Order: sequence, then structure tokens, then C-alpha cells
Amino acid sequence: MQPGRVEGKQEMATEVKLDELCINTIRTLSMDAVQKAKSGHPGMPMGMAAVAYVLWTRFLRHNPHNPQWHNRDRFVLSAGHGSMLLYSLLHLTGYDLPLEELKQFRQWNSKTPGHPEYRHTPGVETTTGPLGQGFGNGVGMAIAGRHLAARFNAPDFPVFDYRVYAIVSDGDLMEGVSSEAASLAGHLKLGNIVYFYDNNRITIEGSTELAFTENPNGRFEAYGWHVQEISGYDLDAIEESIRKAQSVTDRPSFINVHTHIAYGSPNKQDTAEAHGAPLGEEEVRLTKKNLGWPEDAQFYIPPEALEVFRESVKRGEKIEAQWNRLMARYADAHGDRYREWQALVNGGLNEGWEERIPTFATDAKPMATREASGKVLSAIFPHAPGLLGGSADLAPSTNTYIKPFGDFQAGNYAGRNFHFGVREHGMGAILNGISLSKVLIPFGATFLIFSDYMRPSVRLAAIMKTRVIYVWTHDSVGLGEDGPTHQPVEHTAALRAIPGLVFIRPADGPETAEAWRAALRYASGPVALALTRQKLPVIDRTKFASAEGLHQGAYILAEADGGKPDVVLIASGSEVSVALAARDLLQFKGIQTRVVSMPCWEFFSDGSAEYRASVIPRSARLRVAVEAATPFGWERWVGEDGLIIGLNRYGASAPYETIMKNFGFTAESVAQRIMERLGQ
Amino acid sequence: MQPGRVEGKQEMATEVKLDELCINTIRTLSMDAVQKAKSGHPGMPMGMAAVAYVLWTRFLRHNPHNPQWHNRDRFVLSAGHGSMLLYSLLHLTGYDLPLEELKQFRQWNSKTPGHPEYRHTPGVETTTGPLGQGFGNGVGMAIAGRHLAARFNAPDFPVFDYRVYAIVSDGDLMEGVSSEAASLAGHLKLGNIVYFYDNNRITIEGSTELAFTENPNGRFEAYGWHVQEISGYDLDAIEESIRKAQSVTDRPSFINVHTHIAYGSPNKQDTAEAHGAPLGEEEVRLTKKNLGWPEDAQFYIPPEALEVFRESVKRGEKIEAQWNRLMARYADAHGDRYREWQALVNGGLNEGWEERIPTFATDAKPMATREASGKVLSAIFPHAPGLLGGSADLAPSTNTYIKPFGDFQAGNYAGRNFHFGVREHGMGAILNGISLSKVLIPFGATFLIFSDYMRPSVRLAAIMKTRVIYVWTHDSVGLGEDGPTHQPVEHTAALRAIPGLVFIRPADGPETAEAWRAALRYASGPVALALTRQKLPVIDRTKFASAEGLHQGAYILAEADGGKPDVVLIASGSEVSVALAARDLLQFKGIQTRVVSMPCWEFFSDGSAEYRASVIPRSARLRVAVEAATPFGWERWVGEDGLIIGLNRYGASAPYETIMKNFGFTAESVAQRIMERLGQ
Repeated sequence: MQPGRVEGKQEMATEVKLDELCINTIRTLSMDAVQKAKSGHPGMPMGMAAVAYVLWTRFLRHNPHNPQWHNRDRFVLSAGHGSMLLYSLLHLTGYDLPLEELKQFRQWNSKTPGHPEYRHTPGVETTTGPLGQGFGNGVGMAIAGRHLAARFNAPDFPVFDYRVYAIVSDGDLMEGVSSEAASLAGHLKLGNIVYFYDNNRITIEGSTELAFTENPNGRFEAYGWHVQEISGYDLDAIEESIRKAQSVTDRPSFINVHTHIAYGSPNKQDTAEAHGAPLGEEEVRLTKKNLGWPEDAQFYIPPEALEVFRESVKRGEKIEAQWNRLMARYADAHGDRYREWQALVNGGLNEGWEERIPTFATDAKPMATREASGKVLSAIFPHAPGLLGGSADLAPSTNTYIKPFGDFQAGNYAGRNFHFGVREHGMGAILNGISLSKVLIPFGATFLIFSDYMRPSVRLAAIMKTRVIYVWTHDSVGLGEDGPTHQPVEHTAALRAIPGLVFIRPADGPETAEAWRAALRYASGPVALALTRQKLPVIDRTKFASAEGLHQGAYILAEADGGKPDVVLIASGSEVSVALAARDLLQFKGIQTRVVSMPCWEFFSDGSAEYRASVIPRSARLRVAVEAATPFGWERWVGEDGLIIGLNRYGASAPYETIMKNFGFTAESVAQRIMERLGQ
Repeated sequence: MQPGRVEGKQEMATEVKLDELCINTIRTLSMDAVQKAKSGHPGMPMGMAAVAYVLWTRFLRHNPHNPQWHNRDRFVLSAGHGSMLLYSLLHLTGYDLPLEELKQFRQWNSKTPGHPEYRHTPGVETTTGPLGQGFGNGVGMAIAGRHLAARFNAPDFPVFDYRVYAIVSDGDLMEGVSSEAASLAGHLKLGNIVYFYDNNRITIEGSTELAFTENPNGRFEAYGWHVQEISGYDLDAIEESIRKAQSVTDRPSFINVHTHIAYGSPNKQDTAEAHGAPLGEEEVRLTKKNLGWPEDAQFYIPPEALEVFRESVKRGEKIEAQWNRLMARYADAHGDRYREWQALVNGGLNEGWEERIPTFATDAKPMATREASGKVLSAIFPHAPGLLGGSADLAPSTNTYIKPFGDFQAGNYAGRNFHFGVREHGMGAILNGISLSKVLIPFGATFLIFSDYMRPSVRLAAIMKTRVIYVWTHDSVGLGEDGPTHQPVEHTAALRAIPGLVFIRPADGPETAEAWRAALRYASGPVALALTRQKLPVIDRTKFASAEGLHQGAYILAEADGGKPDVVLIASGSEVSVALAARDLLQFKGIQTRVVSMPCWEFFSDGSAEYRASVIPRSARLRVAVEAATPFGWERWVGEDGLIIGLNRYGASAPYETIMKNFGFTAESVAQRIMERLGQ
């Protein structure tokens, strides 16, 4: 790769010296930045600098001047606390990250926050820090790579052949989410994955001997990975291991790299101290001395080292230009597929897709919203080429299997149905990784209760604003017999509390159709759909308002007789039809009742205050919320004198009609409680 | 174990027939109950009946007439959906679970809910259903067993030697939480664990080939487990494997059992259909015929089968009586240790423990509440013999390492400090398992942000009302440089929304002391402490109210001058001192301001309405909440015209003073916003 590399002893020695200089540049930049910030993790960048150097200068196919190039190799720093390693590499290889930003490490508004943040820093592929997430994101990126290759590559047109490289720590390996993702990656034979395990034998509490004595090589072999073990300082061995990993195309690669945390620090190397705190000024000086570095230089980059790193710019521009030429020829040779690719680039939805959304007849039989969702999904799928997804072993229950589009499996990476296995958390992290392709719109399904299992990934989706759709069915105690362990209660509130997550709980078939429309239109972050297991009446839209109101978040479904409500009755999902029936009882008693369907708090909040006040006027005698979930948070809409008919306890195991009746989610019970509150 | 077993061919044949009769009793009871309920999971009980039969009749040391006996073996059905297996066994072996209850499977108020529920059904050791949790609970039970043995066993007094048996499914193995728990169990060499893997090659979506093709044996060997592989229908092999597992005392045991889901069903055996739905009346009939069962009999228990199972009662009473005699002799021979054991039985706290809680001088230097917590914990530890715990590799950051009490490790099971590794979810499940001993009070520590990783276990703690304490530090954006990935925002609301979880966010050292007092006094469920990373001023308690108000959940910390507040300013944790300082500014402007410290919503809600109204009177012109977290839910306390100074976005990476200033959590900013709202 580097011509002349082994021509003669003299040159070799020079080269070795230059390699060392480059590697030490990473080390010293990292420790200087952490020291200046008086905060951060110097040990990991120092320990892994050599591996990163070999990978970035000899293998990584990327274009620092265009971090969005679609066929770039992905580099994931799953051990996100070692962010200075990544920032050093990004600066050195010529990304738009000036040295000044490295000097502002961990400072307000800098481009170099404590942990790498997607969208914030050019070249950062995903937000990492919470351990195990990057590991799973990388698996998602590899899935996207294999999928795009299967759909678009053609003989002589290897338009998608990128690889995913990652650095993972012992912490990443201990987290369950990485076990889930690793097992699935092995099952799927994702040979485009190359992960380096930074095996430095040190954790925050001390030696890994304290808690982590498993055999990681054996574990990864059991998952079906290709495993190698090398020293982190033998550049030839590093290079050879990467070559070998690249040559194994039917299995992901795990390279167990023996390293020393804070390599080069005379007093802190191989200590837990060096993990998460600056080395200290004196130790920085001693380390520089030990590494043959000018002791007093700060953020020093030797010009000859910079030259080596900056070759990435030329190389990157060249390979992207080659790829662009390949794509141009591809457009001629494979016009249809090229146009499909363009459809993905432009949002993944064919023109007119919205017209394919089915309508639901007013006289239709009662239908669960999960079933309605399945119908909508089936209808949209052919017209949404970017859409793909699956469930955590609950496809039949979540109605998310779209048969004509095949299974994504090792033999058929073009398939668009995923079997994630019973791995909700892995699924969550993988969905983020797939979405980071920016050309695919992944969805993932499970029961709403298990949103808890994937919550750390959902939060990261919201932080990163990834375009991910969650299909969470069995959305209340109304799921029936499975009982309290499977019945969400606090989840509605807990999910609405996540900034940036759109949570929609539709009331019937028509609202479910609008919910999917909203989810696919929305490109600014993750959207969750909460759907029922139990059948619901289809609301008579000839009599009541159109489900299009969903896009406002809440809307007047049924006006009070006379238009001046005594009671504003707000409900979501399965409780909307209960509210409608309660309205009949109340109107009969002369209590003028408006019913507001409120499928989405976020949309409603984002709208105008005027609209909100018009839908839920404070002038009403009583505002009421009905939702088979915790009352937590509903005071916001009904005020502190409002009535919240919710559930401040765990559920129960019984047929759902019994449960809904015993917990008071019937028209009679709702009407009764309202009349009691009104003193009638 | 069963004398005369191999005496002659005739007898052997009779015995085999009797074994089959017993096993088929489990199968038919399970399928009958599921069929009657028209809901449930028949396949697993039918597939695993033989293993369960051998285990329960030949090995399990338990007393059906006293499910609370301390030295009983534990049986965990991690695959909780197969609940009818457990209910069948409990009824057959003589627990207080009448046949009538089996006929009420999955019905309102029955003792046989869809998934096994601890406290609800005698003999159910833990609530299972959400996959992987039971696996982790069992590891916690095994830890408790090893710990009690190390603390109390003496030569000739093996007072604690129980084992933990579990049935785990492919779903349990796919969930990351079990990977975490398994790795730790291997590390800790928990030889008292015997887990059966129900390897039936079927998941809800179809064959395990769809998503789960790893090598589980290899994986468990890599974790350091002893691994065996057997047929689930060869009773001798089952018996031998258990014997062998028992003989391996330095490693947990994993027995990979080849089974057939819905064993015996002519048309549904080995199909995904049999996983989660009744077989159907006709298939039930065909299956009975196939098993040589009376086709029309429902819930039929052959008397000779019942006799075999009910031997458990006699045997159980005998072994418990033996143990009671052993304990009586132990009390004589090892009086001190017996008294310590009694202290555990009586709640794990020595008399006078509360007096050991340190006080914090009013003129003390600013101190983070995590640091105060560490001081309290150190002071209480010697007087709380039931207390033990540790962190998910964050001991130095969470101040939870109590040096004099040693590490819980394979060589030292008496140690009371745990190193859970970077395994928050595993930790959560294990804490529940330890707590289920009913004699130990475990705590687990990590950053508040990572409560998300362990949330499914926290929920189960709340459902089960286990006595677990969570120490969650770094509780807001005030943690500083680590940035948004590490800064909780929505977590306060999301945790307060969990029914039955007590969430306390103390304001300074004195409140932290009271928070620990409250946590240890509280025996009705889990308690979480949210603590700061950053230093906080110690509130001058000679000037302001005592921290004892914490036990009311909220209290008037500083009264408005004159006692008639214009403004009631409510805050928690680190924002309380900000509120106090803002009060000075407001009072100076003539705005009479009361400051309410509100560390615990749950305690406040559980108190009287009168007290609540006295602390936060609606008559005030303005009620204000200040908390460096999502405003979600605060309308409950400040009303819809109240002012909520919170954070409806993700955090940022910078020194904490900068963050708090830029996000408006300063006295000046708070006072300013209040004055603006008041139009002043």
C-alpha cells in the first residue's frame, strides 16, 4: 500500500520513525486536549493510537472533504469516551475540524464534545458513549451496506462495498446490547464488519480481573465470528490482521488487540487512573519525554506527520471521483436500478406513495390498530423503496411481516423483512445504524412494554434525529391475559418525556393510516406508533371528524351539542371510542360534551397556542382525560382541577373486556365519574 | 433416590409407566388450562415436562407447605410464558394452589395469571415473563446463597447450601441481560447454579434458524460455565446430568436440553403455532389419545401420579425439620453468628443503626450529594448487616465502595462489595434476585442516565416490591463535560412514572442522610437515590428548616417573609440552593417567596391532601418549579399557570458552571424569569 516500504534498511528505519511520529502525534494531541480541558479520557487514545493509525492511513476508504460520500467505509468509536482519538484522526486526516476545536475539547459550543456526537462534528458517524450502542450501530451500518450491495451491485458495478470498522472496549463487550448485536451479526454472516477489541485489561474500578474474566475470543467464535488476536503495537501484525479480516467475507471479524492503556506514560500506563482523568501536567511532560516528544510543546503536530495523514484528502477525493464515475456508468447501464437508488437518496418514498395508503370503511368490522397498521404497511411497502424492518420475534403479533419482500438473511440480503430475534435492545441499536445510511427508513416492532428494553437506543435515536419508526403493539392493559409483566402502564408517559421522540397512539383504522402517513412524512427524528392488540370499533367518520386531525396532534372528534362544551373529554387510542360512547350517555343527561382525540402530544405541542386553546378551552366546566395508562403528566392538558381517568397501578391477567371493565375504562364508568365530579 | 428402581424388569417397566403417567399429567394439565382459558403457551410445558418431573421429584429440596423456608432450593421459570408448567408442578407437589385455580388460568383474580407473579402465587420465586430477567434473578439468588454460606456455614454446619435451578428458553439466551448475568456468574464461579436450556428450536416467528444460529454451548463455555447436552426425554440422562451439574461446584452449569415444543401433539409438535396459542379442542383430544390419555378427561390427575408428586410434602417437611434442628444446634454452637442471622431475618439492620447516620455541619464545605452518600453509606454499613452492593464499574464515581467489607469474589463470598462490571441490566436483575432472599438488602450504583439500561429490572422490582436501593449519581446536566449522552433529562419523569418506585433527589448532605434513612426504613419496594456529581452548598439548617422534612416528600425550607408567599418556589436536588438564592433576590424586590424542597414526589403524594395544600398553597400568585430536567409532569404541582423552569432539550458538553448558567439554572436567571412572569 505504501510503495517502497521494504526497499532497504535505511528507508525502513525512516519509515518506522515516521510511523512512530504519526502515532505519537495522536497520543500527544489526545493527552494535551484532555489536560487542557481538565476532563476526559486520555488512556484509550494513547493505547489504541497505533491501530487507529494503521487503519486510517492504510485501509480506511473515506473522503475527508465529503463525509457524506455514500460508499465510504464507516469508522465507529463504540468506546466513545476515547473521543479525542477520533477528533485527533479527523483533524489530522483533513476533516473540517480545525486544531482550534481540539483546543476547545469539552467546552461550550465546541465541535469536540465529551463524547462524539453525530450531526455535530463532521466525520462522526454516530453518537457514542453509552457503551454497546456503537457496537450495535455498526452492525446496522453493515446490514445497510449488504442490503444496498444486494439491491444495487451488478457485474462490474460494485457500487456498494463499504466496510464497517469499530473500536470496542471491554465495557462494550460486557453490555448485553453488544451480545445481542454480535449474535445477530454472526447469524447474518456480515463479513463487512471488522471490530477491534481494545483489550487493555483495565476498567474504571481497576483490573478487568475484578469482573470480566470470560473468554471473549471463544464467545465471538460461538457467535460465528472470525477471531484474531494481535499486539496493538506491531504495525505489521495490525496490517496483516486487517487484510485477513477483509479476506473473510462470510463472517464478521473480531480482532482482539492487546494494548496498554495510556501507552507511554511512565507512571500511569496500565492503571485505572488513566482511564477517565487527565494525566496531570507533570505526567504529560514525562510522557512526552518518554515518547521522544518536545516536552513543552502543546498540540504539536510535526509537519512530516501531518503530511502522512493528509494524504487521506488526495486519496479520498480520488476514490470518490472513481466511484462517481462508476455511478455515472451505472446510471447508463442500469437505469432502473439507478433511479431506484435516486429514490432512496431522495427520501425513500416514491411519488404518489400517500395515495396508496388504504382507507377504512366506516361500516368495517372492529379491528385492532395493529391489524390496521399491518394493512397500511403492506399497502405502502411497494411504494416506499427505502422502507424495511422487522420485529424482535413478534412478527405475527405485531403484523409487520410483508411477505412479498422476502427475508433479509445471509443468502438474501435484498430481503426487506428482518428477523431480529428476541433482541429488542440490539434491534434498537441496529435500527439507528441502518438509518445512518440516510437512504433507508428502518422500522422495528415489539410490544410496547419492551420499549423499556430498547430505551437507551431510542434515546440515542432522538438525540441523533435518526429516521426510525417503532411499531409498538399491545399498548395497554387491554392486551388481556398476558398480565402485568406485559402490560404497559407508565410507558406512555416515559416515552412522551423523551425530547424529540414523536409518540402516536391512534384510535382506529383511519387514525392508524394517518399515523403511518405522519411517520413517513416526518424526517426529523424517530416516530413511535402505539397500537392495540384488541379490536376497536371503527369510528364513524361520516358522523365525526376526519382522522386527518391526527396531524395536529389532537382534534375535536365530536363537538358538544350546541358547540359549547360543559365537558371536554380527551382520550387517545383505544379509549377514544370509550369516550365517544360516554359522550352519548352524558349528552343524554344534558351534559354538553366534546370529545377530543389526542393521538400525539408532540404534534399538538408544536402547533399554535391558539389552536390548542380552541380544542381544549379552559372555559369548559371540566376537562377530562381518559387513557388506560398512568395519569402522570395529564395535568398539563386538563389542569389541576381536571379529572384524569388513568391507571396508577400495574395491570392484571384476564380477558381484556374484564380488565377494561374492572379498571373503569367503559362508557358507563367514565360517564359516572364525570357526573360525580360535576356533582350530578 | 427412588429405591428399588432397577430391581427387576417388571418393576422397571411399571416405574417407567408411572414416570410417563406423571409427565403426561403435567402435559395434559397444561394444555387443558390453556385450552380452557383460550389463551396461553402450551408448547413449552409439554416439551419440558420430563425434565421438570425429574428435577422436582428427584432433586428439588423444597417444602411445599412452607414456601418461605430459607434454605430451599430455588426454581426459576425464566421462560415465564410457560407458566402452566410451574402451576402444574406447584399444584401436584402440594403447594397451596388448588386444582380450581388451574381451571381459572389467566382469569381475573385467580392465583394463576398469564405469567408467574411473585407474592401472588405460593411457590413462585420471582415474577417472570419479560425474557432474560429470570435468568438474572437466578444469578442473584445464587449470589445470595453463596454469600449466606460464606457468612454462616461452619464445620458440620452447612446451614446454607441451596441451589438455583432454572428453565431458560432461546429467548432468554438471546436477551442481552442474560449474557451479562451469565458472564458474571461464570466469573464468580457460582457452582450452585443449574440452568436447563429448553432447546426446542422454535420461536414465535418460526424456526430458531431464522435468527439464532450461534453456538450456545461454546458461548457458555466461554463464560466459564460447565456445559452438558442431553435429550429432554431420556430420564436417566436427565438425572445423570443433574447429578453431574451438582458435582461441579466451581462453575455454574448449563444443560442444553433437546426438546420438542408441544411434545405429543400429532399436528402441532415442533411448530411455532404451539408456542403461544391453545392447541385447539380437537388437537387437545388427539394429543391425549396419542399420549394414551383418556381423551375426554379434563384436568385429570391419575391418583398414582398424584401420589408420586405429593411425596414432596413429606420429604419437604422432613428436610426442613432436619434443617431446623441443625439451626437449633447452630444457635448453641455459634451464638454470635446465629444472632447475626437473626438480625438478617429481622430486617438486616442492627438496633440503633439510625443513630450512626452522620450529620453534616452547616459550615461544611460544598459537597456533592454522591460524596455525602458515600459518607453515610460508610457510616451505616457496619450497623446494617443485611446491606451489600456495588456498582456497574463506577464505584469511584458513585462513592459506593466500602473498603473494610471486602470484595464479593469467588475466593471471598463473604465480601459485601460487588463488582458488577459494565452490566447495568444484569445488575438490575441480580439485585432483584439477591433481594428475593428476603434477608439481604442489595444496592446497585451507576449513573442516572444508565437507569435506562436497567429499566426492565427496575420495573420488575416495583412490581415485586423487592427491597432494592439504586444509587444513581451524575443526576443532571450538572455533571458537566461528559455531555448529552451522559446527561439525564427525561429520567426524573420517566422514573417517577413507574408505579411503586420511590425516587428521591436530595438537595444537600443533610437531605442525603435523610434519603438513606428513608431508603433503609422503607421495606415495601425499591427506592432510588438521585445524586449529584457536582459540589453543592450545604444549606444552613440553623436558618432554614430541618432536612427531616424529606420524609414528607416536600417541605417548606424557607418561608416567605411575613409568611404569606406571593411565590412558591419548588425545587429538588441541586436546584434547591439555586432556589434559595433566587428567593433572596426576589425578597429584595419585595416579592414574598417561599422555597419548598421537594426531594420525593411519592412520599408527598402518599401524605395528606391537607399537608400538600399547606406546603404548596394554590392561593399563591405564582407557583414555580425549578429542576434541571424535563418539565414533564410538573404541572401537577404548579398548575397550568405555573412556571416550570426545566430543560426540554438534551444537554451539552462543557464545565458544569457554564452549563447551569447557559441553561438558566442560576439564582439570577430564575429570579428574572419569575419577575417577568409576574410582569415586574
